[in-house]
Amino acid sequence: MKILEDRILKDGTILPGNVLKVDNFLNHEVDPQLMDQMGAEFARKFADAGVTKVLTVESSGIAPAVMAALHLGVPMIFARKHKSLTLTDHLYTAKVYSYTKQVNNDISIDRRFLSADDNVLIIDDFLANGQAVQGLLDIAETAQIKVAGVGVVIEKRFQKGHQLVQDAGIPLVALASIAKFENGTVTFAQD
Amino acid sequence: MKILEDRILKDGTILPGNVLKVDNFLNHEVDPQLMDQMGAEFARKFADAGVTKVLTVESSGIAPAVMAALHLGVPMIFARKHKSLTLTDHLYTAKVYSYTKQVNNDISIDRRFLSADDNVLIIDDFLANGQAVQGLLDIAETAQIKVAGVGVVIEKRFQKGHQLVQDAGIPLVALASIAKFENGTVTFAQD
Repeated sequence: MKILEDRILKDGTILPGNVLKVDNFLNHEVDPQLMDQMGAEFARKFADAGVTKVLTVESSGIAPAVMAALHLGVPMIFARKHKSLTLTDHLYTAKVYSYTKQVNNDISIDRRFLSADDNVLIIDDFLANGQAVQGLLDIAETAQIKVAGVGVVIEKRFQKGHQLVQDAGIPLVALASIAKFENGTVTFAQD
Repeated sequence: MKILEDRILKDGTILPGNVLKVDNFLNHEVDPQLMDQMGAEFARKFADAGVTKVLTVESSGIAPAVMAALHLGVPMIFARKHKSLTLTDHLYTAKVYSYTKQVNNDISIDRRFLSADDNVLIIDDFLANGQAVQGLLDIAETAQIKVAGVGVVIEKRFQKGHQLVQDAGIPLVALASIAKFENGTVTFAQD
């Protein structure tokens, strides 16, 4: 998505360890017009996929996910993060390791909100090692629901999340796909 | 806002301790169409207030805040919650006590995103004791910026958050204002 790539080149900062900082339009200060345009693009890409719900994980996924859900005309559910969970009978849960923060979190979705005929689109801001997406895929598997696809704002193609989704045979849409960082600049994948 | 009041009556559940559970359309599963309509309503109410940015706190505030910001045509910033903060030189921070979870959190906003000429609209899902709003007001005071108003999806008029915002002389818009809970039903304030 050209406007997103341009925005990354203009406003993104590359930090040590291949970390792309985009907290000035995506995950701290948020550009709502861009979120809206991205939501429309996700909806266009998954228009024929029979999506019944959009799933994401708090917090950075919420803005793009709610816009995608708005344009698809379906509800959005954000999984909650917890340090650890005790009373979990009413919840679908999964473990998620954050490489950035180096902590394990449980994520959860109330069982009331997923039913056997659901076909979900998973949305997140970043796909790097794919831990958050894997957690949502684990929940989808436990809930025995279909996954229509995974949509991410930015993927780092060279980290293992991309391959993880491909290996699961799930359609993947990244609005910007980073092939590599080199000499302090971003190179986008060309396909 | 009639459609919101109707939705609360239809889908809300009252739990012990005057807790209104609306996790089926507001803060776990989210109805994006309703968020969009509420965002438009906040924008209408604060159309002449000269709002430059919308502020909220992760996570439940993000969906209504990003929609309000979209309709106002300004950026949205969500404050981050932390257990406790160490390196804080680049951040505006405030302490927030959660009555629901009975924990203290720090909230923070990067200093880069607030400047002296800002005039912010604070948006949140609930106004009960007003701790989250107070935290954002504290940050606004530290950053020496103006506060155009506070907009909340649901206020519990009988708890102290309402008075807190009134006493600060800040315009307050609640899209649904709960006067009381009685015999398992909600009574809305009539003004």
